[in-house]
Amino acid sequence: MLVKRIFEAAPFVRSLGIELTSFGDGWCEARLNVISALEQQHGLVHAGVIMTPAGHTCGGAAVTIAPEGPDVITVENKVSFLRPAVGPSLFCRAQVFRAGKRLIFVEAEVTVEHGTERLIAAKASSTLAFIPLKVTNRNRDVAPRSAVS
Amino acid sequence: MLVKRIFEAAPFVRSLGIELTSFGDGWCEARLNVISALEQQHGLVHAGVIMTPAGHTCGGAAVTIAPEGPDVITVENKVSFLRPAVGPSLFCRAQVFRAGKRLIFVEAEVTVEHGTERLIAAKASSTLAFIPLKVTNRNRDVAPRSAVS
Amino acid sequence: MLVKRIFEAAPFVRSLGIELTSFGDGWCEARLNVISALEQQHGLVHAGVIMTPAGHTCGGAAVTIAPEGPDVITVENKVSFLRPAVGPSLFCRAQVFRAGKRLIFVEAEVTVEHGTERLIAAKASSTLAFIPLKVTNRNRDVAPRSAVS
Amino acid sequence: MLVKRIFEAAPFVRSLGIELTSFGDGWCEARLNVISALEQQHGLVHAGVIMTPAGHTCGGAAVTIAPEGPDVITVENKVSFLRPAVGPSLFCRAQVFRAGKRLIFVEAEVTVEHGTERLIAAKASSTLAFIPLKVTNRNRDVAPRSAVS
Repeated sequence: MLVKRIFEAAPFVRSLGIELTSFGDGWCEARLNVISALEQQHGLVHAGVIMTPAGHTCGGAAVTIAPEGPDVITVENKVSFLRPAVGPSLFCRAQVFRAGKRLIFVEAEVTVEHGTERLIAAKASSTLAFIPLKVTNRNRDVAPRSAVS
Repeated sequence: MLVKRIFEAAPFVRSLGIELTSFGDGWCEARLNVISALEQQHGLVHAGVIMTPAGHTCGGAAVTIAPEGPDVITVENKVSFLRPAVGPSLFCRAQVFRAGKRLIFVEAEVTVEHGTERLIAAKASSTLAFIPLKVTNRNRDVAPRSAVS
Repeated sequence: MLVKRIFEAAPFVRSLGIELTSFGDGWCEARLNVISALEQQHGLVHAGVIMTPAGHTCGGAAVTIAPEGPDVITVENKVSFLRPAVGPSLFCRAQVFRAGKRLIFVEAEVTVEHGTERLIAAKASSTLAFIPLKVTNRNRDVAPRSAVS
Repeated sequence: MLVKRIFEAAPFVRSLGIELTSFGDGWCEARLNVISALEQQHGLVHAGVIMTPAGHTCGGAAVTIAPEGPDVITVENKVSFLRPAVGPSLFCRAQVFRAGKRLIFVEAEVTVEHGTERLIAAKASSTLAFIPLKVTNRNRDVAPRSAVS
C-alpha cells in the first residue's frame, strides 16, 4: 500500500509522531499527539506542525488514487489557521476533490477535540502532481524531478 | 528583541535546528541544516520542513516592525514548491511587503546552495495579524485568541 | 439586507450579470449567464469571470453574519481551477467556515450543469475582514481604509 | 506573438479594457483604465477587476516562454489585496519565477499611481500548466482539456 509507505518511510513524519489512522479511495486520515517539543513560543502548537500533517495527508489521499508507479509531489499548499490547535491530539483528514492525469486537487482539515466536539483548527487546499520519481534515498547526485518539471 | 525571542523560545523551531541569522526592519533570515530526520520517503527534505521556516521567518519579519506589546499570529500561508530542496542547508529570507495596523503581508523565499549559486526551492506568501496574546506558556486553561478572533 | 445591497450596488457585478439567488446565515448563492463577452481566447469562460463571483459570494456570505455597521473587505482569495467552466450558466455557493470579530474565513464553489449533474469548475478559499469603511461613493479624495490597515 | 494573441483574442480582457503594454522573455505588463462600471458597492475597484489582469498577465508572462504549440492554463491563483486600488489606471506586471516542462510559477503585482510614486494594490502568485488545447472557439461539443487533466 503506497499510502502506508509514505507515512512509514518518511523520517520527518515519524519524528513528529504522525500516524496514518485510516484511508480509502481518495482520502486518508492521520493523528498526531501534541508534545511540548512541537510548540511555538506561546505554548501553542507551531504552525509548521499543523502544516506538516495537513500537507502529508493531502499527499496520502492523492496516492490512494495514484496509478501504479508514479509518485506524488506537492506543487503548492495553502493553509488557513482558524483556531489555535489546543488539545492533546491533532486529527487530520484529507480528501481528493478533483484528480486528472497529472494534477490533483486535495483539501485537508486539521481538527482538535473540545469536550465531545471536534473543532476545526486549520484548513488546507493543495495542488499535487503525479510524477515519476527517479530519486533513490540518499543518492543526492541524481537530480530529482521537481514539482514544476 | 522580539524577533530573537520567537526563534529561541519556540521548541519546535529549536528542535528542527532553525537559527535566526540576520534581521532588520521588515525582514529576517534563518538557516537550517538538513539532516536525515527531516526527510520524506524519497530522501528529499519534507515539505513540512520547508513550510516551517518559511512560515516562521514570515512571523519573524512581521515582529521586527510590530508595535511594542502585541504579538503576531499567522492567518494563512501559501507555499509553492519550485524545486527539490537538495543541499546541506536551507536558507530562508522573509520580507514584509505591506503592513497595516492589524494585518501584515509577508513573503518568504527558501533557497539552497548549488555550487556558487543560490537556487530557489520554495516561495511563500502569508497574511499575519497583530494580536494581543494573553496566553501564558503551558497554561492550557486560558483560551488563547485565535487568528480569526 | 446588506447582502442584497452588495450585489445590487456593485456596478461590476451587475455588468457581469451576477445575480444573488439565495442566502441565509453564513452562506449565499449566485448565478451568472455565460455570454461570449466573458470568454478568453479559446472560447472558454475567462478565469477572471470565475474569480469574480467566487470572490463576491465569499463577501456576500460574510456580510450575512456581519455585525451591523461594519463592512467586509477581501484580504486574500485563492482560486483553484478544477475543470473548464463549460455550460450556459455558472453557479456559485459560498459558505462561512469560521468567523471571528475581525476576520472571517469563507470557501466558495463554482459549478456548472452537465446533464443532470453539477460539476465543480473552481474552488475558492478566502480571508475577509470586517472593517468600518468610511468611503463615500466616487469621493476619491478620502483615503479609504485598506484591507491591511 | 502568442502573448499578443491572448490579450487581443480574449473578449473578456478586451471588454475590461486591459491592454498589453510591454513584454519580454518571462514577463509581461498590462494596464487598465478604471471606469465606474468596474467598481464595487463603495466606489472602489472590484476585487474581480484586480484579479482579472493579475491572472491574465500571469498567463501572458507564461506564454512568452512557452514552447511552440502548447497553450497555458491557470491551475490556481492566490491574490492578496494590500491597498484599495485608487487611481485612474491599474498597472500589472507579471514575472515567471520558475518554469518546468509542464508547470510554471508566476507572480504578478497590481500597482496604482499615487503622485509620482507607484503603490502596490495587490500581489498574485499563480501556478499555470502548459497544455495542448484542442478547443476551437465556440465549439462547445469538444470537451476541452482541463487544468487538472
